[in-house]
Amino acid sequence: MIERLCVIGVGLIGGSLARALRDAGHVREIVGASRNPVHLQRAVELGVIDRFDTDLASAVQGADMIFVSVPLGAMGAVFRSIRDALTDGAVVTDGGSVKASVVADISEAIGEIPSWFVPGHPIAGTEQSGVDASFSELYKDRRVILTPLAETDATAVSRVRAMWEAVGATVSEMDVKHHDEVLAATSHLPHILAYTLVESLARMSEQREIFEYAAGGFRDFTRIASSDPVMWRDICLANGEAVLNMLERFNRDLASLSEAIRASDGDRILQIFSEAKSARDGFAG
Amino acid sequence: MIERLCVIGVGLIGGSLARALRDAGHVREIVGASRNPVHLQRAVELGVIDRFDTDLASAVQGADMIFVSVPLGAMGAVFRSIRDALTDGAVVTDGGSVKASVVADISEAIGEIPSWFVPGHPIAGTEQSGVDASFSELYKDRRVILTPLAETDATAVSRVRAMWEAVGATVSEMDVKHHDEVLAATSHLPHILAYTLVESLARMSEQREIFEYAAGGFRDFTRIASSDPVMWRDICLANGEAVLNMLERFNRDLASLSEAIRASDGDRILQIFSEAKSARDGFAG
Repeated sequence: MIERLCVIGVGLIGGSLARALRDAGHVREIVGASRNPVHLQRAVELGVIDRFDTDLASAVQGADMIFVSVPLGAMGAVFRSIRDALTDGAVVTDGGSVKASVVADISEAIGEIPSWFVPGHPIAGTEQSGVDASFSELYKDRRVILTPLAETDATAVSRVRAMWEAVGATVSEMDVKHHDEVLAATSHLPHILAYTLVESLARMSEQREIFEYAAGGFRDFTRIASSDPVMWRDICLANGEAVLNMLERFNRDLASLSEAIRASDGDRILQIFSEAKSARDGFAG
Repeated sequence: MIERLCVIGVGLIGGSLARALRDAGHVREIVGASRNPVHLQRAVELGVIDRFDTDLASAVQGADMIFVSVPLGAMGAVFRSIRDALTDGAVVTDGGSVKASVVADISEAIGEIPSWFVPGHPIAGTEQSGVDASFSELYKDRRVILTPLAETDATAVSRVRAMWEAVGATVSEMDVKHHDEVLAATSHLPHILAYTLVESLARMSEQREIFEYAAGGFRDFTRIASSDPVMWRDICLANGEAVLNMLERFNRDLASLSEAIRASDGDRILQIFSEAKSARDGFAG
């Protein structure tokens, strides 16, 4: 049970966690915090948080659990704002999509890697953003990855794990670098491809007509291009190396397929498509 | 009203048209045809067709409307099989995703572009295939593109248009080359990207683990990689030039984004993502 949860950044991710913990009876009081009182007031109206504070240092006082769900580019500033205001025994965790940058940010803000910080990442979300898009079931049957370090306190990890399990998630642990590589492959690269495709098409002169003849496959394929651009800019900046490595691998494979199309090599094309279908069907099942 | 419809290739596309025309009361008798009696027998069991014939020439006899929905690579052989068996006044149309290759195939089979052939393309489908996946509502509120040529009989076009309108589709006309370029952009390129991404990931050593941590965005993005590999091989071969042109455009844009990531140029990344989001949100609305 969390006595007082402080959610810094009450959008889709933070708002959904607040709703889910309340529904699960796993929290007594929820304080929202961010720089934007309009968003926070809306979160109170929706019943997502009990009260709010736009001063982060004062918001975290007395909280035994702090969840930081702001874009990656804002993490460092949040850590600097709260570092001297935390209550003894408080655990801080986050929802950032890249872990190495968050660990670097906290380490820089504190001067060392603190025992009370548990880097985390719920593998959940939609293309929507903002507290109005938050919902209690977002984490049900989804995975959460924690990437604790040698310095991380085991009890802090247990408390974060218990929090996520309380909202129906399955928690795994892996190391920071591996997390960032896996996510570059399954999440960051697909977003980059979807954004690039839509941008390519939007700049073609016939764009309006083009989108008119797009079908369901295109709709699904490009849904993630509606995701929050600031969040995804920050992910690209924070996980640049892993993302560029994946891009290089993808470009090699795309060039190989292009070459097969240019050479009208039907056998090779069929082989690539068949292997992909088989992998994708396995994933779906 | 169609007196006797002959559907050559009774899969998702052909089967769904048969079901929809029957439900709309727009057809009296439906004959299925293909080389595979097992699939055809299944189509009879499902009530999709009334009877079948594995001899295409005999199947089209007496039919006033023939719908050819086979992979693009099989179109030429179908046209050669039926050309001497068509009843006077019969109209032939198709559902191929590329129109230039189909027009070349019929022209080669007949020795000229026949007045009774209306090249067509319903912009509808799912990642599934086969008659078991067919359903009556597939074309409701979807678009169908017809690409009639100077040689095409206007009455034949009207009859095909009426057929698609009877099943709830909106029919547009455009020229063959434009159709193939638009579809390369909105359909063929996305499928190529999805197949390539899944294939890239599947060949990474940690593939099983990687797919384990994929979320809903990945699922949507890669759904089309479950599409029929033979159909998509044929599309790549038939529309190679337009597909390679789109790939070149996409590669330029992807290289430009990669460069921005490499240079940590947050403003440029944000601009690209924001423009894409805006275009995608407009499409969704």
